Amino acid sequence: MSATVSPLAPKSYAEMPVIRGLRMATAAAGIKYKNRTDVLLMAFDAPASVAGVFTRSKCPSAPVDFCRSNLSHGVARGVVVNSGNANAFTGLKGRAATELTAKSAAQALGCSEQEIYLASTGVIGEPLDATKFAGVLGTMATDATGDFWLEAAKAIMTTDTYPKVATRSADIDGVTVTINGIAKGAGMIAPDMATMLSFVVTDADIAAPALQALLSEGVGPTFNSVTVDSDTSTSDTLMLFATGAAAADGQARIEHADDPRLAGFKTALNAVLKDLALQVVRDGEGARKMVAVTVTGAESDLAAKRIALSIANSPLVKTAVAGEDANWGRVVMAVGKSGEMADRDLLAIWFGDVRVAVNGERDPDYSEAATTAVMKEQDIAVKVDIGLGQGTATVWTCDLTKEYVAINGDYRS
Amino acid sequence: MSATVSPLAPKSYAEMPVIRGLRMATAAAGIKYKNRTDVLLMAFDAPASVAGVFTRSKCPSAPVDFCRSNLSHGVARGVVVNSGNANAFTGLKGRAATELTAKSAAQALGCSEQEIYLASTGVIGEPLDATKFAGVLGTMATDATGDFWLEAAKAIMTTDTYPKVATRSADIDGVTVTINGIAKGAGMIAPDMATMLSFVVTDADIAAPALQALLSEGVGPTFNSVTVDSDTSTSDTLMLFATGAAAADGQARIEHADDPRLAGFKTALNAVLKDLALQVVRDGEGARKMVAVTVTGAESDLAAKRIALSIANSPLVKTAVAGEDANWGRVVMAVGKSGEMADRDLLAIWFGDVRVAVNGERDPDYSEAATTAVMKEQDIAVKVDIGLGQGTATVWTCDLTKEYVAINGDYRS
Repeated sequence: MSATVSPLAPKSYAEMPVIRGLRMATAAAGIKYKNRTDVLLMAFDAPASVAGVFTRSKCPSAPVDFCRSNLSHGVARGVVVNSGNANAFTGLKGRAATELTAKSAAQALGCSEQEIYLASTGVIGEPLDATKFAGVLGTMATDATGDFWLEAAKAIMTTDTYPKVATRSADIDGVTVTINGIAKGAGMIAPDMATMLSFVVTDADIAAPALQALLSEGVGPTFNSVTVDSDTSTSDTLMLFATGAAAADGQARIEHADDPRLAGFKTALNAVLKDLALQVVRDGEGARKMVAVTVTGAESDLAAKRIALSIANSPLVKTAVAGEDANWGRVVMAVGKSGEMADRDLLAIWFGDVRVAVNGERDPDYSEAATTAVMKEQDIAVKVDIGLGQGTATVWTCDLTKEYVAINGDYRS
Repeated sequence: MSATVSPLAPKSYAEMPVIRGLRMATAAAGIKYKNRTDVLLMAFDAPASVAGVFTRSKCPSAPVDFCRSNLSHGVARGVVVNSGNANAFTGLKGRAATELTAKSAAQALGCSEQEIYLASTGVIGEPLDATKFAGVLGTMATDATGDFWLEAAKAIMTTDTYPKVATRSADIDGVTVTINGIAKGAGMIAPDMATMLSFVVTDADIAAPALQALLSEGVGPTFNSVTVDSDTSTSDTLMLFATGAAAADGQARIEHADDPRLAGFKTALNAVLKDLALQVVRDGEGARKMVAVTVTGAESDLAAKRIALSIANSPLVKTAVAGEDANWGRVVMAVGKSGEMADRDLLAIWFGDVRVAVNGERDPDYSEAATTAVMKEQDIAVKVDIGLGQGTATVWTCDLTKEYVAINGDYRS
């Protein structure tokens, strides 16, 4: 947690309504930090439907393994999240820590360990002392309350400079439901997923397989389209829970993701996911500028996304943005290195509304002054038209600054 | 060209012998820089055999296109290299510039334009005024001399902080031959190839197809195993020329790369390529530390190389090295994100001689003090054993410092 809040932070936090069927509590278990909360308990009054997507790392953390294993049961009663230690690459000790934490949480909530989900974020490779949770989870379960979203978001922060919350409401067949989410993440952020934890909860009544389909589809253009530093965490976790409390208002349980009654819910869910994902980028370590990279005219949407990520992850593009330098030559370089089909003589490139290159060379009407003005903005749109097909994609990233190097050159100490 | 020489620079430059059959000259054509040479002419007294490997960028520069096209003829009489402008993404103007330069050089040397090779390095996307070469190439051809290697290396520098030269000798069937090379490159350096130009010349008498085979094989563990920032240039060019002057000493022309008489020559050539490639990394923009990443025990050599590059290109690994932080958790992260097979519980990791992790967790005998001592060195070896197979690879990179951001946030201006 940094003393200085990102200049890209939202000006205010969303007012987060209570989600019926969910209570939360935080505690200072002393995992790593002093004088701050570092553990979050989410408690569901009744079994909630659950869905999750996780890191594609070949070396996932122990909590990721634990969640993947429990997900087949489809039911959640509690979630325990800690910051300060990722419990990743901790071998047999890591597994023992997840088992002990789950056991403590299950006892506190009066449920099975298969109904518990876990996430840890922080340093990799240090053993996590799970006995510290055992002492606090009982009290947390008793004290847990519904109106606690901002505190929850604060407890899971690591190098984040602000807590990340988002909320939307939707209509399912005449019944209003709410979707709330929190996220953390600022570095080790790259698709699939990001060094990123996010927990989204709705009071809608939706079966677990439908919930999983909604989440798997929603993650593509949101959390899997943001990158800070191209580094993929061992711990990335995005979970979606449905308490089903809206059944009390007459909402009939939805069993399938393609149910037309879910149209509005899908839109609202994707809006929450995008809101949270962009907040993660806006808190990118050392970030001073937000960059939206849009690629059009690629051979396919997948090709467009790969080209967009090649641009968004290029250190030379990101340092140019930091320096407010409209160096579109580096954008060409990044298109060329992506490996996707491109013809340099068909490329067109825009910074903001200014077309800087067209037909393989500098735009004849290119204005250095106009482009420089764009580069001085806090939010910068880079657009590249490949000129070959119909594929499009947008990804979001931030600039690469000296502060990123400072933050990450001295993280453990 | 920076005022401050990289702390990783060699303490002295190699004594470069004359290569019979080659003369060189440099000039200040005023392409971009003031008060320095920015164009190099290499002139072969007789047609030399030629081989080349180039960037894999889908948006190569005009000179790369030009060289690829001429390479099928297999004969070189002259090479023109300029710094300050890459003549990349310059559309029809770029092609016209290569044609004018080749025409001027062919006139100056009395040869065909198909016997001319070109390379340009510097800013992308700015038209190159090739008329500036026309005025100097005639004089350069007249003044060219054999003993000019260090000056040649200086003329092609961009953000390099020192000129890069290397030399070796070898024996071909009882005749001693020499191999000399120069290189430039400091940023936009990533395999296949690097923002890198390199020109290697030998007086051996070797046919062009054999020369091409030797170069294509030699580039893999050398120039294609170094990375500074994962960004691949549009202009990467590595060329190898054989003047054949050693025929005067009785060296019989070699027609095939698998000729056993080439054994010593291969070793010497690969040593020159590795020497130059490592000098490029040691001049990485802002570099303070050199890192050799060795991966063993991968499923294949290709898998090992991909894992090694994932580690070497990770901003979080590179900033940790800059901060002298033995953050092996980030090495685990980079292994996991590579996409190659890995089992975290089989991984072992060393910094220098210190094994920091084994069997999926911190080494029981891990010493923070010993590891910290390793991290304070200028040259750091990172070794990862995957524990799955026999694949091995080594790649070289440098740390990521605030100076890299400073250099690249303000390059054009």
